[in-house]
Amino acid sequence: MLGVCVENVRKKSPTIHCITNYVTVNDVANAVLAIGASPIMSDEAKDVGDIASVCRGLCINIGTLNEKSIEAMFIAGKRAKELGNVVILDPVGAGASKLRTETAAEIVKKIKPDIIRGNISEIKTLALGVGTTNGVDADAADAVTEENLEEMIEFIKDFSVRANAVVAVTGKIDLVTDGDKCFVIRNGCSQMSRITGTGCMLSALTAAFVCANDDNKAEAVAAAVCTMGLSGEIGEKRLGKSDGNSTLRNYIIDAVYNMDEETLDKGAKYEIR
Amino acid sequence: MLGVCVENVRKKSPTIHCITNYVTVNDVANAVLAIGASPIMSDEAKDVGDIASVCRGLCINIGTLNEKSIEAMFIAGKRAKELGNVVILDPVGAGASKLRTETAAEIVKKIKPDIIRGNISEIKTLALGVGTTNGVDADAADAVTEENLEEMIEFIKDFSVRANAVVAVTGKIDLVTDGDKCFVIRNGCSQMSRITGTGCMLSALTAAFVCANDDNKAEAVAAAVCTMGLSGEIGEKRLGKSDGNSTLRNYIIDAVYNMDEETLDKGAKYEIR
Amino acid sequence: MLGVCVENVRKKSPTIHCITNYVTVNDVANAVLAIGASPIMSDEAKDVGDIASVCRGLCINIGTLNEKSIEAMFIAGKRAKELGNVVILDPVGAGASKLRTETAAEIVKKIKPDIIRGNISEIKTLALGVGTTNGVDADAADAVTEENLEEMIEFIKDFSVRANAVVAVTGKIDLVTDGDKCFVIRNGCSQMSRITGTGCMLSALTAAFVCANDDNKAEAVAAAVCTMGLSGEIGEKRLGKSDGNSTLRNYIIDAVYNMDEETLDKGAKYEIR
Repeated sequence: MLGVCVENVRKKSPTIHCITNYVTVNDVANAVLAIGASPIMSDEAKDVGDIASVCRGLCINIGTLNEKSIEAMFIAGKRAKELGNVVILDPVGAGASKLRTETAAEIVKKIKPDIIRGNISEIKTLALGVGTTNGVDADAADAVTEENLEEMIEFIKDFSVRANAVVAVTGKIDLVTDGDKCFVIRNGCSQMSRITGTGCMLSALTAAFVCANDDNKAEAVAAAVCTMGLSGEIGEKRLGKSDGNSTLRNYIIDAVYNMDEETLDKGAKYEIR
Repeated sequence: MLGVCVENVRKKSPTIHCITNYVTVNDVANAVLAIGASPIMSDEAKDVGDIASVCRGLCINIGTLNEKSIEAMFIAGKRAKELGNVVILDPVGAGASKLRTETAAEIVKKIKPDIIRGNISEIKTLALGVGTTNGVDADAADAVTEENLEEMIEFIKDFSVRANAVVAVTGKIDLVTDGDKCFVIRNGCSQMSRITGTGCMLSALTAAFVCANDDNKAEAVAAAVCTMGLSGEIGEKRLGKSDGNSTLRNYIIDAVYNMDEETLDKGAKYEIR
Repeated sequence: MLGVCVENVRKKSPTIHCITNYVTVNDVANAVLAIGASPIMSDEAKDVGDIASVCRGLCINIGTLNEKSIEAMFIAGKRAKELGNVVILDPVGAGASKLRTETAAEIVKKIKPDIIRGNISEIKTLALGVGTTNGVDADAADAVTEENLEEMIEFIKDFSVRANAVVAVTGKIDLVTDGDKCFVIRNGCSQMSRITGTGCMLSALTAAFVCANDDNKAEAVAAAVCTMGLSGEIGEKRLGKSDGNSTLRNYIIDAVYNMDEETLDKGAKYEIR
């Protein structure tokens, strides 16, 4: 059922404007190309309006935000919404600094992104106005577990309704909700947390999936989350004993490159609640 | 005949100043090291004058241009020309935004780069003052094909004469001209378009090739283009069925690392028109 | 003896704030994750104070410094020192431009980093106030050799005392001193100089090692240097005949990922003078 979303990305090949951090930007670009879409990166205020106009989606990632790029985020976000483009926010490090927390909150309020994707600490920060994070990683105390699953589903459904956005929380267990139904996803592997950029890549992939499947945003986001997690599993299986996180990163992008309808439909592990 | 150009790069090991985008900058640096040259990246206005002075070549790539880096491009470009250094322009995304189109045009006019390398949509934008692009990728309608080859050769020869630069247009068929003769190159593989950075790497490699072979710029540029395309072919041949664009990227840089005179002379596919 | 330092990093998993260049930042982040620590990148003046507060270490790398990031370096450095965090300086390209030389010197003077790590040309520039560099690479005439070893050891011991910092000079032979004893390290492989980022990765790893082993800084720095050099040796041994610097880069990070006490204790090649 989710597999067809992959084929739609490959068929429609949407162009995605990324205002993203310089740490993982190369992996983000290659992941977007791997799924069959086309990335363009631009974060200059005088450039982003025009660039937004030649794109179908916008991925705003605040991982290495600065005064200039924040200005560009708002210009690009506003233009993208005017054009009816898909906008996704990745609030990297919200909770770790005042600037990140406030910027993310203001983007939610003023741009009204269609999708918000982050780790649980970032999403809690946005939903509650406060939060704790361990740098850019989720606080272990916040984690979504089998024990608090019901509660967490209600929590993000509530935030999804209030933000009027599809919300995706990723971690050991991933949750994707449009406020009504919630996908509970159990793909992925633990070694993915030892690579920088899996979250950033997922956010940009999510933009591509939603652009190409905009009649059902929650399902498209769930397909993106399953694609990333399953690619992690496929990549991990290929690792030899001398391999580590650098090779795993390559294999994950390779797995996105080779992802197809059948592979995703067979490998996606989710239930709808 | 082109192979000797590779050996000259390895012997002379020129230092190349790159003002380049942050998306592919790591691959650019590793590609320059792979061919035996030495890269240095700097895009701060107060730094680039000094840096230009310790280099033999300058590669200006506008892929993620901003107000500050544009200022640095002009300072570095002017200084490099004063010193008699080789200057190459990669007008990434010219045609996709006013800022990119105008910046690229102004660099051509004021800095007078020795070499201009882009995809056909970018080069058309520069040559005609207008153009259409699909983000940072060439518009399919613009492509150089066997059918329009004669016409395209004349077109870029004319632009080369007007810009007083060696012009390289890369795509399925690559063209390199000094206004007089035109190299028509048929190396490369289709999967290269699924990796970010092959164009950026080529531009920086081109700077290294021309620095080390400055008695024959057009041939040096053609050697760089053939090296990149042939590296793509060599990389693609190594791919297993689980591999994708991330592994291909690594294999391409590896192939540049292992490129030598004999391999290039045997593998280069070109005619001169 | 040095191997236990690796285990301490894995156990304590310190968070490291990196203000680092955009060329090698992805490799830096993955190297820090590989050793079991946690990286966070931020170079915006309004962000770095908060970020420093959630970290244990700060790595300042001036590889692509600009006016804005220089401001951030001083704010972050000052805050980190107030908090008693570990601060390391990597003076990339000091000697190649006035801005780099002056910025590095001012950081030494005003921030008083706990550790300074660079190539010999950069360290000479800092120690003597002048220097020559070939871009970002060490000048061959400066190299630490078996012939000038005694003299170089005295030279960096003297600088270490004056700067009140552990000083690490890396190259074919690596030296690490706290002004009293000096580790002379002979790990590494020549092909490492054909990859961008080995120095940058080492600087960030060093921050992680010192954070997790702060009762003996010199030994912690030596352990980091041996880890990087030994990872280079392990990576090089895995290379097939078609592999090159891109694959070597991946294998080096993989080797850091798999580094453990036993491997480091067996593979570290050093003497104390």
